[in-house]
Amino acid sequence: MTRATRFLEACRGGLPDCTPVWLMSQAGRHLPAYQAIRDKVPLLELCRTPELAAEVTVTAAEELKTDAAIIFSDLLLPLIAMGADVELADGDPRITPITGRAEIDALIEVDPEDTMPYVFEAIRLVKQSLPDLPLIGFAGGPLTLAGYLVEGGPSRTFARLKRLLFSARTDGEALLDKLSNVVADHLAAQLEAGCDAVQVCDSWAGLLGPVEYRELALPYLQNVFARLTPFDAPTIIFGTSANGLLECFADSGAEVVSVDWRVRLDEARGRVSSGQALQGNLDPACLFMSEADLRRKIHGVIKQAGDRRGYVFNLGDGILPETAPGRARFVVDTVRELSRSTTS
Amino acid sequence: MTRATRFLEACRGGLPDCTPVWLMSQAGRHLPAYQAIRDKVPLLELCRTPELAAEVTVTAAEELKTDAAIIFSDLLLPLIAMGADVELADGDPRITPITGRAEIDALIEVDPEDTMPYVFEAIRLVKQSLPDLPLIGFAGGPLTLAGYLVEGGPSRTFARLKRLLFSARTDGEALLDKLSNVVADHLAAQLEAGCDAVQVCDSWAGLLGPVEYRELALPYLQNVFARLTPFDAPTIIFGTSANGLLECFADSGAEVVSVDWRVRLDEARGRVSSGQALQGNLDPACLFMSEADLRRKIHGVIKQAGDRRGYVFNLGDGILPETAPGRARFVVDTVRELSRSTTS
Repeated sequence: MTRATRFLEACRGGLPDCTPVWLMSQAGRHLPAYQAIRDKVPLLELCRTPELAAEVTVTAAEELKTDAAIIFSDLLLPLIAMGADVELADGDPRITPITGRAEIDALIEVDPEDTMPYVFEAIRLVKQSLPDLPLIGFAGGPLTLAGYLVEGGPSRTFARLKRLLFSARTDGEALLDKLSNVVADHLAAQLEAGCDAVQVCDSWAGLLGPVEYRELALPYLQNVFARLTPFDAPTIIFGTSANGLLECFADSGAEVVSVDWRVRLDEARGRVSSGQALQGNLDPACLFMSEADLRRKIHGVIKQAGDRRGYVFNLGDGILPETAPGRARFVVDTVRELSRSTTS
Repeated sequence: MTRATRFLEACRGGLPDCTPVWLMSQAGRHLPAYQAIRDKVPLLELCRTPELAAEVTVTAAEELKTDAAIIFSDLLLPLIAMGADVELADGDPRITPITGRAEIDALIEVDPEDTMPYVFEAIRLVKQSLPDLPLIGFAGGPLTLAGYLVEGGPSRTFARLKRLLFSARTDGEALLDKLSNVVADHLAAQLEAGCDAVQVCDSWAGLLGPVEYRELALPYLQNVFARLTPFDAPTIIFGTSANGLLECFADSGAEVVSVDWRVRLDEARGRVSSGQALQGNLDPACLFMSEADLRRKIHGVIKQAGDRRGYVFNLGDGILPETAPGRARFVVDTVRELSRSTTS
C-alpha cells in the first residue's frame, strides 16, 4: 500500500499499511513557499488563480509527504459568490453581517461551477500534477457559514446567530437551507472536477448543544451528505468543541468523523457508528514542543486511536501559522514511522 | 426549606425542596438598574467602590429572587493587583501581554486583603443587607488567568499560552503557581469576609485536552481547592468546552462541577464523582426564545439533571448583555415552579 491508497482505505474503514496522515491547513502560512507567493499575491487573488492555488496545494503535499492533498481554497468563497460582502484576510475575515429575512432572501443560491470556476480548474491542475495522490475538497458547514454571515466573523457567544435560530427560526432555517444547497453543490462540483474525498468543516459546530444541533443544524448537514451519496467518495465531518455532538456527527451521513484534542479518540470510537472512521486529533500547538515531546504526543494520539483500521491521523484544528518550518514534515514522518511499528 | 438554605443544601449533595437557581453574571449588563449605575461609573471604579458593588449585588439577587447572590467583581482585579497592565472594559479587556520569564517573575504574589480591600468590604456590606441569602465569591482559574496575561485577552487558538506551556514549561509552571497562590488567598479572604461558597471560573479550561489539562493545569486547581478545605464551604469549578475535562474536574477537590450546554447533564452525572454536585447548563442564548420555548428548554435541563439531589440550576455561561429585561426573573420563577412539581 502507498500514499496513493492508504488514506482512502482508512476512510472506508479498512486497514492500511501504516496510519495515513494529512494536516488541516497544511498548505497555509506555516510554509515558507506559501509565504513567498503571498508576499506578492493577496489571499482572494490566490484563491481565484487556478495555477497558483494548484501550485500551493501540490507544493505542500510534496514537501510534507502527506497521504492526501487538500485543495487550497477558502471557506468563504461560496459566501462571496452568493452576494455577501466579505473581505478576506490572513487572520479573521470581515463580513458585513446580515440582519434579517430580506438579506437572507437576497442571498443567491448560486451554481458553484458558474460562479467559482477557478476552484474546479485548480482541482484539475492538481490532479494533472499528482494523479495518484488523493485530493480532498472542502466546504464550510451550513451552521458555520451562517455564523460568519450573521456574526460578521468569529464570535465568542454567537449571540446574533443564536437569536436568529432561537427566536426567528423560520428565517434561520431559510438561511441554513440555502447554505446547505450551495455547500452540497460546491462539494459535488469538487468531486466531479477530480477530488477523491470531501470534508465539511463545521468548525463552529460546538456553539450549539446536542439537542439544539440535532434539531436545527443536523438536518442541513444530512442534506449535504445525502446529496453526495451518488459519488461514492469518502466524506468527512469536522467540528471543534464538538464532543457532545459525536452522536449527531455519527448520524450525519459522513463516513469519517474528525475531532479536536478536547475528546479522547478512544472515547470517540465508542460514540460514533461502528462503520465510521475517525480522524484527528493532535493539538496543533503541540508542534511548538521539542521534537522529543512532540514525538511522545504523536505516539499518545496513535495509541489512543487504538487500531490502524478506520483511522486517519490529523491535527485537531488547522496548523498554526506560527509553526516552525520542518515541524509539519516531522509530524508526517513520525506518524508513518510509529504507526508502522505498531501492531494493529 | 427556603432561599437561605436550598443552594447550600444542593451543593452538599442534599435534597432541597426545589432546585436552587442563580445565574452567572446575574448582576451584569442585562439589568437596567446596573446599566443606570454604569452610565455614571466606569467598571473599575464600580468594582473598587464597596457601596456600589454591594448595591449591584443585592439588587440583582432581590430583583431576580435567586437562591444565592454572587459578589459583583471582576476576574481581572487580582491581575491588576499583581502588577499587570489591564484595561477593564464591558466587552473584552485589554492587557499588555507578558512575554517571558522576567515578566512572570515581576508579577507580585500579593496579599489580596491588602491590595483589594474593597472586595471584602463589599462582601461585608452585602451580608449586612442580605444576612440570610448565601453569597458566592469567585476568582478566575489559574489557567484562565494565565490566558489573559499571556494572550492579552481572549484568543481562539491560545497559541501564545500554549507555546509557553508546551515549550517553556518551567516558566509556565512558575506563572501558574504564582496565580494559584493568589487565587487561593483571594478566595480564602472572600470566605473570611462572609462568603458562603466560592466558584473558580476556569472559563477557558477547554483550551487544553484532557491529558494536558491533567498534567499542566489540574495541579494548580487542586492547590487552590486544597487550601480552602479548612473553611468547609462549598466550592464550585466552572469551565466551558470542558466535556473532556469532567474527570479532571472530578479530581479537582471542588464539591460542585459546573458545565456548559455542550455536555448533557445526565452524561456529566456519570463522569464526576458520586458525591459531587452538578451545576448548569442552559445555553444563555435560550433567553432570546419565546416564553413557551424557554420554558420547554428549562424543563429539558431539569429533566436531564434527573434528580433534585445535588443539583443547582444555572446557565452554561454568563447571562448575555443583550438579554431582554424580565427574562432572567422568568428563568428563576420557572425553575422553582417546574422543580417543585417534579417528584425527585
